[in-house]
Amino acid sequence: MQIIEAIEEMQRTSTFFRRQGKVISFVPTMGYFHEGHLSLMREAKRRGDIVVVSIYVNPTQFGAGEDFEKYPRDFERDKTLAESVGVDVIFSPSTKEMYPEHYQTYVNVEGVTEKLCGASRPGHFRGVATICAKLFNIVRPRVAVFGKKDFQQYVVIKLMAQDLNMDIEIIGMQTAREASGLAMSSRNIYLKACEMESALSLSRSLKMAKKLYDQGQRIAGDIVSEIEEFISKHPYTEIDYIKICDTQTLEGVTFIEKETVLALAVRIGSTRLIDNYVFGEELPVPA
Amino acid sequence: MQIIEAIEEMQRTSTFFRRQGKVISFVPTMGYFHEGHLSLMREAKRRGDIVVVSIYVNPTQFGAGEDFEKYPRDFERDKTLAESVGVDVIFSPSTKEMYPEHYQTYVNVEGVTEKLCGASRPGHFRGVATICAKLFNIVRPRVAVFGKKDFQQYVVIKLMAQDLNMDIEIIGMQTAREASGLAMSSRNIYLKACEMESALSLSRSLKMAKKLYDQGQRIAGDIVSEIEEFISKHPYTEIDYIKICDTQTLEGVTFIEKETVLALAVRIGSTRLIDNYVFGEELPVPA
Repeated sequence: MQIIEAIEEMQRTSTFFRRQGKVISFVPTMGYFHEGHLSLMREAKRRGDIVVVSIYVNPTQFGAGEDFEKYPRDFERDKTLAESVGVDVIFSPSTKEMYPEHYQTYVNVEGVTEKLCGASRPGHFRGVATICAKLFNIVRPRVAVFGKKDFQQYVVIKLMAQDLNMDIEIIGMQTAREASGLAMSSRNIYLKACEMESALSLSRSLKMAKKLYDQGQRIAGDIVSEIEEFISKHPYTEIDYIKICDTQTLEGVTFIEKETVLALAVRIGSTRLIDNYVFGEELPVPA
Repeated sequence: MQIIEAIEEMQRTSTFFRRQGKVISFVPTMGYFHEGHLSLMREAKRRGDIVVVSIYVNPTQFGAGEDFEKYPRDFERDKTLAESVGVDVIFSPSTKEMYPEHYQTYVNVEGVTEKLCGASRPGHFRGVATICAKLFNIVRPRVAVFGKKDFQQYVVIKLMAQDLNMDIEIIGMQTAREASGLAMSSRNIYLKACEMESALSLSRSLKMAKKLYDQGQRIAGDIVSEIEEFISKHPYTEIDYIKICDTQTLEGVTFIEKETVLALAVRIGSTRLIDNYVFGEELPVPA
């Protein structure tokens, strides 16, 4: 496995592989890998000849007062894990090179970024779209694999790639979960033992929503109310949003028809967690 | 010469050439070619194996009340001229395909677009950067050639390519001029005969600035005042801006040192013209 830090070396390496007719598949990450990341890398392996994984905690997608500084990092462990699933190249650039002095170009996916997490984290998706545009230009993949735990991010990147005519297939993978149902996230490490039961209220509430939907409930507001009540009963919880919306536009819906997602963001103590459920899909969460 | 309208066909064609190891050089235009465009195409020919020219009057770079509808178009003439200088592919997409319903992604080069023409034409450079990002992704050139008559556009695109790590060399070519000194522009066709003498005040004022500079004048404000007075004496003129600024940041300067450009935009009747002079360079304008 190759470790590359310089942008130009990564570009040269990608050009070399592409000239050989190799398909590059790409998994952009902020590191601190869990099973969710590894499942993306395995999918990338299935879809390409050369798997490139970037590890970069991107400052422009963190707001003031967010957890950029304390975001967990463990490069040595990440290397071992990436190698274990057959990653070919880790690209791990420096901020000095990614955002040099006088950096001033940003990519904005306008409509869809104003909703859900975009409303609570202004500028977040501008940072996400920009770093992905940059990484795509550096790595030049044919395929890029994202986790659907960050559902809005997946929608934003898919739209960006389509709108800007990037010739890249954007793949979304199901959320990896702990046996408890908790959606895997690098941020779970922030959770205190006493908060764990409250953290589980997210995935459990999705399970409740699924059950209501399976029983025939189609009124979005009714499902949201039940979930809201359920989560609020747990200590340490502070709901940021609970929304049922169209999976493409992320516009809120009144009635659940097809292609609808329940998305939520809840603060558990000082940790902000997100999770989502696309109606009609499976949901590996214990009842 | 090949004419391509579909985005996917252009991407396929570019991929085909790149796989053969050919260097694609690219000239994005809004058509209605004059000698300035042809000089860009000739330069592209020198720098690449395959010259692609796009012809697309991009709606997102025109503001409300600007000349999008009446912008001159003559595809048949453009084809003949492009063929005469050895262009290999004309890419001429439809707005339906470039900006489909629900289009929402824009590229913004933030600092440098707020000055000069960016101040008078809000949103203009967002449109320019976005269409260039799209065209670059579709055509995938190694080299792209721009005219320096649109100096700020050249600066914006160069910064965008650099910031977003596009692996594209951005070349700026000297402004092509009529024998009279008038900077060539597709918009010159709007000028009435009675306005021509006034239109020439732009290039003549640059010549004045060059003369003052050559005589040792280094105080930006003094040069601007003289030019302002000179242009204002002409009928039909309305000055939008006359600025002396750094060629990289486009920040105004007080003293002319190195890498400084005099940029101006003047309305002649209903036609908005721009021109510029980088101090220290040649200027083929009759005295």
